Amino acid sequence: MSAENQIKIAVDVMGGDHAPAIPVEAAAEASLKTNANFLLVGDEQKIKNILDSHRHDPKKIEVLHTFEYIGDDEYPRNIIRQKKDASMNIATDICGRGEAHAVISAGNTGAYILSSIKHIPRLETVNKVAIASLFPTKKFLTGAKKHYSLILDVGANNQCNEEDLLRFAIMGKSYFNILTGEENPKIYLLNVGDEAHKGGKILVNAYQKLSDCKTLNFLGNIEGNKIFNGVADVIVCDGFAGNIFLKNTEGIIESLMDLGKFAARRNFFWKIGLYLLNSGIQKIKPLLDYSEYGGAPLLGFQKIVIKAHGRSNKKAFYNALQMALESYRKNLCGKISEEL
Amino acid sequence: MSAENQIKIAVDVMGGDHAPAIPVEAAAEASLKTNANFLLVGDEQKIKNILDSHRHDPKKIEVLHTFEYIGDDEYPRNIIRQKKDASMNIATDICGRGEAHAVISAGNTGAYILSSIKHIPRLETVNKVAIASLFPTKKFLTGAKKHYSLILDVGANNQCNEEDLLRFAIMGKSYFNILTGEENPKIYLLNVGDEAHKGGKILVNAYQKLSDCKTLNFLGNIEGNKIFNGVADVIVCDGFAGNIFLKNTEGIIESLMDLGKFAARRNFFWKIGLYLLNSGIQKIKPLLDYSEYGGAPLLGFQKIVIKAHGRSNKKAFYNALQMALESYRKNLCGKISEEL
Repeated sequence: MSAENQIKIAVDVMGGDHAPAIPVEAAAEASLKTNANFLLVGDEQKIKNILDSHRHDPKKIEVLHTFEYIGDDEYPRNIIRQKKDASMNIATDICGRGEAHAVISAGNTGAYILSSIKHIPRLETVNKVAIASLFPTKKFLTGAKKHYSLILDVGANNQCNEEDLLRFAIMGKSYFNILTGEENPKIYLLNVGDEAHKGGKILVNAYQKLSDCKTLNFLGNIEGNKIFNGVADVIVCDGFAGNIFLKNTEGIIESLMDLGKFAARRNFFWKIGLYLLNSGIQKIKPLLDYSEYGGAPLLGFQKIVIKAHGRSNKKAFYNALQMALESYRKNLCGKISEEL
Repeated sequence: MSAENQIKIAVDVMGGDHAPAIPVEAAAEASLKTNANFLLVGDEQKIKNILDSHRHDPKKIEVLHTFEYIGDDEYPRNIIRQKKDASMNIATDICGRGEAHAVISAGNTGAYILSSIKHIPRLETVNKVAIASLFPTKKFLTGAKKHYSLILDVGANNQCNEEDLLRFAIMGKSYFNILTGEENPKIYLLNVGDEAHKGGKILVNAYQKLSDCKTLNFLGNIEGNKIFNGVADVIVCDGFAGNIFLKNTEGIIESLMDLGKFAARRNFFWKIGLYLLNSGIQKIKPLLDYSEYGGAPLLGFQKIVIKAHGRSNKKAFYNALQMALESYRKNLCGKISEEL
């Protein structure tokens, strides 16, 4: 039996907008298509009802019943203490104790971070964990297969110091390498100007530390307007800036979609124009579709920890499970640990 | 003679990508179309050559010769000291000494901020000045005339405390009021979540202070993906987050333009589609065109200080001069001072 046969992924099925249906259905499908085992943590009766009507491999799925779960709007700090037996806490605890190799949830992001920090040991020297997110760049215009960049942190920490940012670069490098095979990804620091003296004390120090680190291919600061050029493989920033970047991008794209719908209703020529462009729009749609990327890893733990998008559909959650499997196969945590 | 006849605007004509041509040409036009007087600071011979070939009112234009000017790539902190007689320093100094009512430059932003801080007194209690920038929102789809929001700070300070953010809200309110007539603009705090407990200590405290301030119509936190909905009139943030937001928006829009050009070359149907959409694209273009907004004010000084975009064309610089005039007419600094 190969190591791959033994991988077990703990799934908090009670988190996200479509819980528990989407996580359970995605795991059912993955039980047929992959060699992984799944431990579904949540309301047993509901899980069984869903499994009853979806094809799955019963040998590869276990269910662990919990009474409680954490709601999306609950205040993370209190809830982690009050709801010790919530599905999310049980799933991270199982993973932390080594009874699963990876854990995944589409639930309350803040709570998931705290729950993971509480239950799963961090890698040595890691003070702060980071959420890493992929986004598409203009490079796909050139037909490049690798037209994505990775940005971290996008929301685990509001403030970071220079040491944290250096570690984010190292963690981002390893993850990008696993995704693309690229041995020496181009790393940039998100800042308000190109020059080394920009951005205040922490960023100036981070620039220096990143430059001094000989194992990193650090190429300097990058400004917000250059991000989509695709020059960077990995962009490092604190979670506040990363979150503003990511959500702003989401907001602009949603606004443009609304603009298109408005235009189609308003003017016959515009409607025809949009119709003719449709095959083009369909071509770029996957680029803008988060479900293609399959969730975001929380980097810095000794185990694989994946956050699926709260709005995940089945495809997105399935891709997030795949990402957990792939990260485990390629020894993500070991790779990061070596580099740190 | 009305107060308006007496307004004098000091113009650093040596800053920006098209200096001194654009600033001089814009001032020449404004000397014919407005009642303001202009003091053009920079290379006298070059200024006179441009004036010779452009219609202007010589009674309303003075020229002050300077040998030096500050380049766009020069490091602000040193240069302000080393180049005391650079056009930018002379212009802000003249304004600070009360010999002009307003100052404007399209030059090095960092240097302009420091130069203004050095020469122009701040309003009482103002610790940090802020750059305020307008941006278009989805509201224009509803035909709303007032479809812009104002965001500040977008780059004068990397970090701000809760007191600074409160003052930015007050300054933003006054400026938005002058622009739109809106007495009670809706104010939001840029953050990574809706809830009052989000964003770290400074933002949590700022939320409280903004809520407690009875003269402000503060409606809570706003996330990056809601910015373009147009629910906010004024968005408050530190200069780092504001800069990332603004430049990211610029980058996405540029990428989409490139995408359009690419599509037109690639496929005949897409080309026709874009052609049919052209009248729609022309309609939204002004929305995306910074030259419509006419520069950004630096708020917090006892005088009107306007930063024109480095890439300003004549229309943009002319609009920036208009903005200085309008702000003076409507007593922007007095209004802010009362509210503070």
